[in-house]
Amino acid sequence: MGSRREILAGVGAGMVLAGISGRSVAAPSRRIGYAIVGLGSYATRQIMPNFAGCDHARLVALVSGTPAKLEQYGAQYGIPPTHRYSYADFDGIRDNPDIDAVYIVLPNSLHAEYSIRAARAGKHVMCEKPMAVSVAECSAMIAACQQAGKKLMIGYRSRFEPYNRLAIDLARSGHVGPTRLITAEHGFAIKPDQWRLDRPLSGGGSMMDIGIYSLNAARYLTGEEPVAVSAVESTDRSDPRFRTVEDRISFMLRFPSGIIANCISSYSSNHNGYRVIGTQGWIDMEPATPYAGQAMSIRKDGVTAPRTLPTTGKNQFAGQLDHLAECIIDGTTPIVAGEEGMADLRVIEAIYRSATERREIRIGA
Amino acid sequence: MGSRREILAGVGAGMVLAGISGRSVAAPSRRIGYAIVGLGSYATRQIMPNFAGCDHARLVALVSGTPAKLEQYGAQYGIPPTHRYSYADFDGIRDNPDIDAVYIVLPNSLHAEYSIRAARAGKHVMCEKPMAVSVAECSAMIAACQQAGKKLMIGYRSRFEPYNRLAIDLARSGHVGPTRLITAEHGFAIKPDQWRLDRPLSGGGSMMDIGIYSLNAARYLTGEEPVAVSAVESTDRSDPRFRTVEDRISFMLRFPSGIIANCISSYSSNHNGYRVIGTQGWIDMEPATPYAGQAMSIRKDGVTAPRTLPTTGKNQFAGQLDHLAECIIDGTTPIVAGEEGMADLRVIEAIYRSATERREIRIGA
Repeated sequence: MGSRREILAGVGAGMVLAGISGRSVAAPSRRIGYAIVGLGSYATRQIMPNFAGCDHARLVALVSGTPAKLEQYGAQYGIPPTHRYSYADFDGIRDNPDIDAVYIVLPNSLHAEYSIRAARAGKHVMCEKPMAVSVAECSAMIAACQQAGKKLMIGYRSRFEPYNRLAIDLARSGHVGPTRLITAEHGFAIKPDQWRLDRPLSGGGSMMDIGIYSLNAARYLTGEEPVAVSAVESTDRSDPRFRTVEDRISFMLRFPSGIIANCISSYSSNHNGYRVIGTQGWIDMEPATPYAGQAMSIRKDGVTAPRTLPTTGKNQFAGQLDHLAECIIDGTTPIVAGEEGMADLRVIEAIYRSATERREIRIGA
Repeated sequence: MGSRREILAGVGAGMVLAGISGRSVAAPSRRIGYAIVGLGSYATRQIMPNFAGCDHARLVALVSGTPAKLEQYGAQYGIPPTHRYSYADFDGIRDNPDIDAVYIVLPNSLHAEYSIRAARAGKHVMCEKPMAVSVAECSAMIAACQQAGKKLMIGYRSRFEPYNRLAIDLARSGHVGPTRLITAEHGFAIKPDQWRLDRPLSGGGSMMDIGIYSLNAARYLTGEEPVAVSAVESTDRSDPRFRTVEDRISFMLRFPSGIIANCISSYSSNHNGYRVIGTQGWIDMEPATPYAGQAMSIRKDGVTAPRTLPTTGKNQFAGQLDHLAECIIDGTTPIVAGEEGMADLRVIEAIYRSATERREIRIGA
């Protein structure tokens, strides 16, 4: 139940060393308090129920523009009226010592503003992906958190999901030989009339929302940054869903080691998978990045077999929430810090530019 | 056992009408005689044994530069010395009335020369894929066969393979909704020291040999011609296999209907599959184009299930050999005529150019 002040008090002088040693000296009962900013479907159905599985994080506050939601979820999660905020009140989180961190689950174009305001209010920041709608915004978010001395982490939940972690280990350790090619496909048939289809709020179409999973997977499976990208877009502008944002984008990434990744992003067809192809076989994940139910198969030396992991243990949502909490407690840097989100946005900007200019775009350091 | 003369004699006046009606009036015992040109592994292990399963084709002659091969396979298939040719003797096929057609199974850069010489010798031509090493050569082959009044067909065996035929029907009829995207991957780890790695003989690397399956599949699954292509190449030139030809090429095709195909070609990793993704699901084939053992699965409305076909019936090799034979008998045009091979070469030339110039290349009509 400890507030941030109590955590500090409880830790005492040990806390000073935590940032240096990188090891937590906080008692397990000390939990980092999160305010959830934006009470949409993802926040209420996926994130909030998963605090129950956390060891180091707890839900302490809610921010929404809809009083009925504050009432409903406040009652459900035992959040008192003093810890419920409208957007007009948002900056008041500064004066609530129970709030250590905010989790920004707003439309994409609001990520930068609220992340920066949270940092200035003295709070650590978890921000949903895509980190923002431009590299410039990402840069401003990183600067604001640095200036405030606060952590910044992006909500790349797959990095806390056991199958994806295993895939990363297997791919990078050459389990099926050195990686030669990667394919990664993500998409779904989007329903009309939602903020994701409104460019001023979303900053883009399928690429910003679901295609980013293909991109991020190609980066985390290689552990490399792409040096160039070629992209092709296909959008039926007569479809009312796609008046302002793109439907499909295919893109090819070139990595320094010579690996090529062929990626798909779609708002009009279902895809969820990737494959790492090495000289001796492949590692296949389909589905790769759902909320649950990942399935892996491995082909090696001519034999294909499923690979299963125990279903026990912390799920990806709790793992993600706990990771930022541990980084705050330990004084360490999240594995998916702001720089990781900015790296994706740098490639996304190049993808859009390649699709428009119909040529390969080199990605600068 | 009938020679071409016997076929004509047996058919009598009906043969004159065959070209008009498009229906065969030949008795089932009348078979088109093939000369196999080039006795490499593919010819001797895949093609020649499959004449046994043909209804309209038979093996009547052999052409090779290796006397021992002529002796060995001549004895094995009962081809008399009068029907065995060296390349120096090749044009002598003109005077052998048992030979109706030749099947060119030579290194790629020899396809055009021998196809043209065969047409000028009055023979129909089956030519292995890739049809040639340039569009210009393809054009000359088509002209030579037209001028001689002979058929020209390219060895696209998958078009005679039941699962691929079913995939075409399902994809084009919208079984999983209108097609939105296609992925197609073909590759294998090539062994060193063979003509395929010698550019003067092969005309190119993996793209010419195995990547063409990805390209051809994208075209036959859509029934459309791509309007533009973007390609990326990755080749380790320090690998002795890749001194003169490319290893990996990824390419994206844009089709007039808006379909995008993401394709892979590789000489350093194993791939054999494609997937047609529609608005309601997908049609998956893996492996898609092996000599045998195709496997199809279909996902529709959220349910994935394998789709199997009876294993009886003519295999793809016999089907291909019989198809040209039937076209000759009936006076019809092969479904994979020279224009089909030239269409692939047109795209391949654009793929190479795109990879070099690092921009999208539009493909003219």
